[in-house]
Amino acid sequence: LKEPILFWPVFLKKNQVFILDETLLPAKVSYIKAKNYHEVVRAVKEMKTRAFGQVLAFFNGALLALEQNKNKKNLENILKKVMSDFCNSRPTLPFGAFRHLVNSWIEKAKEKNLDLYAFIKKNILGFLENTKNIALKRVQEVSEIIENNDAILTHCNISGQLVMIAQLARAQGKKINFFVTETRPYFQGSRLSAWELKKAGFDVTLICDNMIAKVMSEGKIDKVIVGSDHCAENGDIANKIGTYQLAVCAKEFDIPFYCLTQSLGKLPKIGADIPIEIRPEKEFLFYKNKRFAPRGT
Amino acid sequence: LKEPILFWPVFLKKNQVFILDETLLPAKVSYIKAKNYHEVVRAVKEMKTRAFGQVLAFFNGALLALEQNKNKKNLENILKKVMSDFCNSRPTLPFGAFRHLVNSWIEKAKEKNLDLYAFIKKNILGFLENTKNIALKRVQEVSEIIENNDAILTHCNISGQLVMIAQLARAQGKKINFFVTETRPYFQGSRLSAWELKKAGFDVTLICDNMIAKVMSEGKIDKVIVGSDHCAENGDIANKIGTYQLAVCAKEFDIPFYCLTQSLGKLPKIGADIPIEIRPEKEFLFYKNKRFAPRGT
Repeated sequence: LKEPILFWPVFLKKNQVFILDETLLPAKVSYIKAKNYHEVVRAVKEMKTRAFGQVLAFFNGALLALEQNKNKKNLENILKKVMSDFCNSRPTLPFGAFRHLVNSWIEKAKEKNLDLYAFIKKNILGFLENTKNIALKRVQEVSEIIENNDAILTHCNISGQLVMIAQLARAQGKKINFFVTETRPYFQGSRLSAWELKKAGFDVTLICDNMIAKVMSEGKIDKVIVGSDHCAENGDIANKIGTYQLAVCAKEFDIPFYCLTQSLGKLPKIGADIPIEIRPEKEFLFYKNKRFAPRGT
Repeated sequence: LKEPILFWPVFLKKNQVFILDETLLPAKVSYIKAKNYHEVVRAVKEMKTRAFGQVLAFFNGALLALEQNKNKKNLENILKKVMSDFCNSRPTLPFGAFRHLVNSWIEKAKEKNLDLYAFIKKNILGFLENTKNIALKRVQEVSEIIENNDAILTHCNISGQLVMIAQLARAQGKKINFFVTETRPYFQGSRLSAWELKKAGFDVTLICDNMIAKVMSEGKIDKVIVGSDHCAENGDIANKIGTYQLAVCAKEFDIPFYCLTQSLGKLPKIGADIPIEIRPEKEFLFYKNKRFAPRGT
């Protein structure tokens, strides 16, 4: 199974972090080449990459800083500054948990008097490898839950994983089709999910975010599958705005609701402990420089 | 209380039907001047006017045809053709019920040997007068249900009536504020409701259609008030896409849900008997000529 570009959208190559610019999709497949970790942080802030891409941005940004400062005496402080800058870039994402994780490696390296550069690099690469394997295993498992003739509703974009699930289900001989919400305000449903599912040859029906109850009430939806930005110990998940009412509607119409999530470190106790990001209003009031709404709202 | 322009957006004047072009709002307040009923039908088809404006379009289109053909022998057939053209323009709206009503007047005129032109004209004017009085009475009643400090969530646009309700409530000394869904795909929430409420001096928070459960779960909403295109004998209502999940969420969070509706003639028995209009996909996939979504969806 070929990995879709959205599955692993950020990687280190030739002393640069390559970041798939998801804001240009589907019109253009283009990578930002970040020459230092600051440029990676900026790409995260500007939502050039999102969802799992931000996890990759964090660790590849750290890897790049490691490479560029490997002989510096204050490597530990540099690394801590890198992590702090990522933590301050956007909330919701489990950057704090990653910092916690990397800090534990730093402590271990100091304790055992290991070379900091080599030890952190090895651990990050191992973590990413492990994360990829968990995702691939989950993709396989979810593909087996899918039944023949299922109509699957999704929201936002699950970083290439839904396409992989769909391709595996198809390889298992199941015929499936998709309903995708456009996912206002940033249209990740239209621009990413509908695009990648269509490109992989699946039948895709795009709906407005407000058509969920309607299509569910008509019996058109068999399963809901969404991703998550973060999760909590009690099973709460945090995901793109709109996921809550999607779940409320699934409950109303008795439709199974699946969320792809994984614990990437220490988890908050309950969902309410996850900070939710409030984005600038211009992302909602404008689209490609056209204003949608009256001033002052 | 001054009537907002959206309250009575279509009227007959100087042998022309003036139709407020709601697609140009809020950027521009402009009226289409229809010189014959065909131009009125076209404005309905193209959604230049909508909701209650279409009711007014139907009757003012009929009035215009009456004036322009008052001395014709086949006035009855002309009138029936006018009504048939409106019925074929858009479903959902209770045009069928209006035709039923006007036909009953035609039968009565024939039975009692009355002048068809004069009798139908008198009845239409009486019907419109009566409809306005019912709306004004309802606006007054709803304003009394509103409580001090209410945050009211609305969807789409209730043809100026929500502004009147709000103004009356304010005159009763109540402080209120509004949450308005943008109402994809045509943005009637952003373009019409947010605009007219803001213009009347109310505090308006615009939200994406997918933010309903979120704001409700935070206790930010006290009441939901929406309009309706049509209703049924059993109390079902038909309104803009998105109203269903708004109601599902209101139920989930125990928030009172009010729908402004009125029987404008013979009603279908249940909501499922109301034909629902499926609009062209381009209204959803494009906004101001910019494509939102991949081809083939």
